[in-house]
Amino acid sequence: MELEGVEIEDTFAEAFPIKVARVLITAVNEKWAMIAAKEMTGFGTSVIMCPAEAGIDKIASPEETPDGRPGVYVMMCTFGYKALDEQLLARIGQCVFTCPTTAVFNAMPESEKEFNTGFKLKFFGDGFESEEELNGREVVRVPIMGGEFVMEKNMGAKAGVAGGNIFILAKDQMAALAAAEDAVAAILEVESTITPFTGGVVASGSKPSSNAYKFMHASINEKYCPTLKDKIEDSELPADVNGVFEIVINGVSEDVVKDGMKAGIKAAVKVPGVVKITAGNFGGNLGKYHLKLKDVLGL
Amino acid sequence: MELEGVEIEDTFAEAFPIKVARVLITAVNEKWAMIAAKEMTGFGTSVIMCPAEAGIDKIASPEETPDGRPGVYVMMCTFGYKALDEQLLARIGQCVFTCPTTAVFNAMPESEKEFNTGFKLKFFGDGFESEEELNGREVVRVPIMGGEFVMEKNMGAKAGVAGGNIFILAKDQMAALAAAEDAVAAILEVESTITPFTGGVVASGSKPSSNAYKFMHASINEKYCPTLKDKIEDSELPADVNGVFEIVINGVSEDVVKDGMKAGIKAAVKVPGVVKITAGNFGGNLGKYHLKLKDVLGL
Amino acid sequence: MELEGVEIEDTFAEAFPIKVARVLITAVNEKWAMIAAKEMTGFGTSVIMCPAEAGIDKIASPEETPDGRPGVYVMMCTFGYKALDEQLLARIGQCVFTCPTTAVFNAMPESEKEFNTGFKLKFFGDGFESEEELNGREVVRVPIMGGEFVMEKNMGAKAGVAGGNIFILAKDQMAALAAAEDAVAAILEVESTITPFTGGVVASGSKPSSNAYKFMHASINEKYCPTLKDKIEDSELPADVNGVFEIVINGVSEDVVKDGMKAGIKAAVKVPGVVKITAGNFGGNLGKYHLKLKDVLGL
Amino acid sequence: MELEGVEIEDTFAEAFPIKVARVLITAVNEKWAMIAAKEMTGFGTSVIMCPAEAGIDKIASPEETPDGRPGVYVMMCTFGYKALDEQLLARIGQCVFTCPTTAVFNAMPESEKEFNTGFKLKFFGDGFESEEELNGREVVRVPIMGGEFVMEKNMGAKAGVAGGNIFILAKDQMAALAAAEDAVAAILEVESTITPFTGGVVASGSKPSSNAYKFMHASINEKYCPTLKDKIEDSELPADVNGVFEIVINGVSEDVVKDGMKAGIKAAVKVPGVVKITAGNFGGNLGKYHLKLKDVLGL
Repeated sequence: MELEGVEIEDTFAEAFPIKVARVLITAVNEKWAMIAAKEMTGFGTSVIMCPAEAGIDKIASPEETPDGRPGVYVMMCTFGYKALDEQLLARIGQCVFTCPTTAVFNAMPESEKEFNTGFKLKFFGDGFESEEELNGREVVRVPIMGGEFVMEKNMGAKAGVAGGNIFILAKDQMAALAAAEDAVAAILEVESTITPFTGGVVASGSKPSSNAYKFMHASINEKYCPTLKDKIEDSELPADVNGVFEIVINGVSEDVVKDGMKAGIKAAVKVPGVVKITAGNFGGNLGKYHLKLKDVLGL
Repeated sequence: MELEGVEIEDTFAEAFPIKVARVLITAVNEKWAMIAAKEMTGFGTSVIMCPAEAGIDKIASPEETPDGRPGVYVMMCTFGYKALDEQLLARIGQCVFTCPTTAVFNAMPESEKEFNTGFKLKFFGDGFESEEELNGREVVRVPIMGGEFVMEKNMGAKAGVAGGNIFILAKDQMAALAAAEDAVAAILEVESTITPFTGGVVASGSKPSSNAYKFMHASINEKYCPTLKDKIEDSELPADVNGVFEIVINGVSEDVVKDGMKAGIKAAVKVPGVVKITAGNFGGNLGKYHLKLKDVLGL
Repeated sequence: MELEGVEIEDTFAEAFPIKVARVLITAVNEKWAMIAAKEMTGFGTSVIMCPAEAGIDKIASPEETPDGRPGVYVMMCTFGYKALDEQLLARIGQCVFTCPTTAVFNAMPESEKEFNTGFKLKFFGDGFESEEELNGREVVRVPIMGGEFVMEKNMGAKAGVAGGNIFILAKDQMAALAAAEDAVAAILEVESTITPFTGGVVASGSKPSSNAYKFMHASINEKYCPTLKDKIEDSELPADVNGVFEIVINGVSEDVVKDGMKAGIKAAVKVPGVVKITAGNFGGNLGKYHLKLKDVLGL
Repeated sequence: MELEGVEIEDTFAEAFPIKVARVLITAVNEKWAMIAAKEMTGFGTSVIMCPAEAGIDKIASPEETPDGRPGVYVMMCTFGYKALDEQLLARIGQCVFTCPTTAVFNAMPESEKEFNTGFKLKFFGDGFESEEELNGREVVRVPIMGGEFVMEKNMGAKAGVAGGNIFILAKDQMAALAAAEDAVAAILEVESTITPFTGGVVASGSKPSSNAYKFMHASINEKYCPTLKDKIEDSELPADVNGVFEIVINGVSEDVVKDGMKAGIKAAVKVPGVVKITAGNFGGNLGKYHLKLKDVLGL
């Protein structure tokens, strides 16, 4: 298969069920909404050793926010609801409640589960807090040094999909990186998806377990490491590929994750030097969702 | 006391001992070094509910980095060394090792304690990793999709100081915020200090415990809340103050934290609308360090 | 009149006819499209002493660009078509043609006037250039060091409107500035408008001619200068106003300029410290268009 | 010759005399100083069709500015002093005087020539302006809507050097671009130099005159165009080079231009995919300065 002259491998991304919360942060300007969003979703690349997988979903225009201010949607994912409840409280409480001019709203209206994060945070007001309705939403209002913090009482969550992915193979590292950056920017526009890794890009895509070390649960995916091309016999890299980056995509549903993969691939193939697009799977036995590139791109 | 026409209260910031690691992240450009640094130090405002207090120390020019590339110094703080060891491994492993083009070096040469974080991460290389000396440093080199990840084997840490702070009081919220932003930018230039809160600024400065709710360990500092000025009897806010932000500063020593406070105050008083600078303390009984504004500014 | 608690003066902005070209710049990523756009529209605040009034219209998503890459729409205004022709050639030739990865397309399809800027630039190719059709557009393709420069042959222009404006009055300078920044960001979303001044904001709004100096064609609008409030008898500033910024808006039609004013005002009144919104006019005798705030806001 | 494994051609950059002014813009924060600097230096890549060559020299810390605020140094170049005088007045008057919170100071103390730009701009104050001394500098103070505009009366200029340059040759366009970006960032740190082209990078480096068209004074440098490699007989590009960018450097002296070239090359060779560094000249007959790469790098 081919898209704009770039080879598309006929394979699939293997993805997994996860629990997802979606939150809207507004602020006096987009800059501060984004600062809050990044602090809240930091240290959130992979649940392997991070307490959550988290990232920026997309930017919210003032027209679509309950308080008419600029905003940023963020998503947070954990394997279970209990961890999600804890992470929402800790991350909103420590990173957004403390941040100048922010307000927080639920951005997952059709949720399976609700957490009363806003209700809990209001007690920080020491009796000076209040509750009210704001454009049909129940919010708490807490006086703080910076003015007042406004937050919707309940945050919604539901089952979603984690681990959608694409691999970008290019002639060298910088072409692969430029393509990965463009792909991440394109996925940022796809509603209800995030690219949780650092800057949206994975440089060290892995395989489960390790051949050399029994104590490792994961290790490098050597078949896609350019510097090992000539040192192993089963490299998956074409001769002219010297740079590979992966983009991992989580979303609220299988469909949006596929939309994200599509947007990412379409952006990546535009970049000079990109040779091939593929995706990562574990043979299909580990993950419930098999997201075929053929279907994703309608090829 | 007064500085450039702004009142300086004769008080002190009360600060605490903490353990600090300092790490240098380099990358192909400053943009990616900063992206890695922000992901690694995210969800890191306060150890009350974050696993660490972390932030950007300062930008490193290519001339001062071991690999001659642009870089960013970050610092990470926890109350004990065990937590610091765990956080270094998790945050570097998940947020920097995975990030395009990064390398990691120890930036705390005169340390009390060393963690073999780089040594541990090398096993991810599944036998393809190697060790070498790079400009006098022992580093590991792990092949990854994006090329190779280079990291110094040992990361140093030592006892430092947390909770240095300044309060910026201004005529309104936006003047206080503009001043806080300038103060954070100025402190970014002070070596070996960080401003761990979101965007460097605290909007919801707190007091220990709560008057209204027994179950709360902390609650709003109502004396500094502009919207409560007329509702309480002991407000500390002058009549013309309607915006207050706090900046918290951690550092590797009492001296650098004081340098940070000085730089922040000098920047803040330049901003139109700033009325008064003060600092937060708990009467002096909780924290080991009393950082007097008088001394900090040499007034 | 009032909007969200902020006084809206019942007055009008006085605006003028101008000629406008609208151009789409695409690039390998939004960053480089924006860099090109800013260089091309720099030194372009006011035709009083700049060769053109120019600015960023809005960001283009890859879906809407002829080459499927990220882009930025820019607009350029002069009083006559001859100057516009010259400025298009000089600014695109020197600032975009020379810029990495860019392509240029006409973004004013229903134009009154066309300039063959792309046709002229192709001769730089020294015989190695070519022409082709790209998604229904006639383009030239010039080989350059960075690859190839692609540009549509003809750029369109039409009669537009210059000098739409709003004045933001706030308690202090920083509140006025924060509001002005938010207003500019909101107007950026309004298609076919620009805010040509530096950062979109005018700090030194003027009146025609000068009372003190015969040789000056323009001078300060002292009635809106906060530091002169107590020195003149006819200040227009309320007692609590200490910061004023103006935003000037040009557009392809009277309607879009009014849309821009509306978006700007709606964003500005959200910012704490904003006291009043008004607009600038010269009594109605100089400009053809009288854009009433009442109409703009539907009050 | 070789640097970090990258071939350095034994050639020289041919550079020319030019007149240079150097100006310091300060503002309430670095963001607004930079916005003003970019507007003022926009449409300023090459005097071929721009009214000046202009760019950001470097960022100024609050410690080094006369008013203790953040700042940005800019430089502006024209072939003669008359044009420089006019451009200083037009660009500062239209792009900085109008910009929120800015002040302007002379940053060329040892000048050959002085222009009374500040003195001229003060008359905009319509009699409300004043003069004073600020830290040993004679400044004018003009009341404006945004507060007050402060500017030093005289701006200094001297003879400098234009057209220093390096060519970066890489395996593909994105590697060359990443290297060019890093080079520009490195040159930004070199005092008293600018990279006047868009984003600091030239994508369409040229030769004087044209073989195909008599009416063209300049045309593409086909020997360095990757897409023409196989179509011409005298291509200068190695077989593995598919991306080339040039960086042009102007400075206040031959020495600083050489420092800029050195900093740029040192940064560029660090980027994966860069194959060769060379420089542009016209055989040595046109330009007074021959800046040899051998000398520049001390090889």
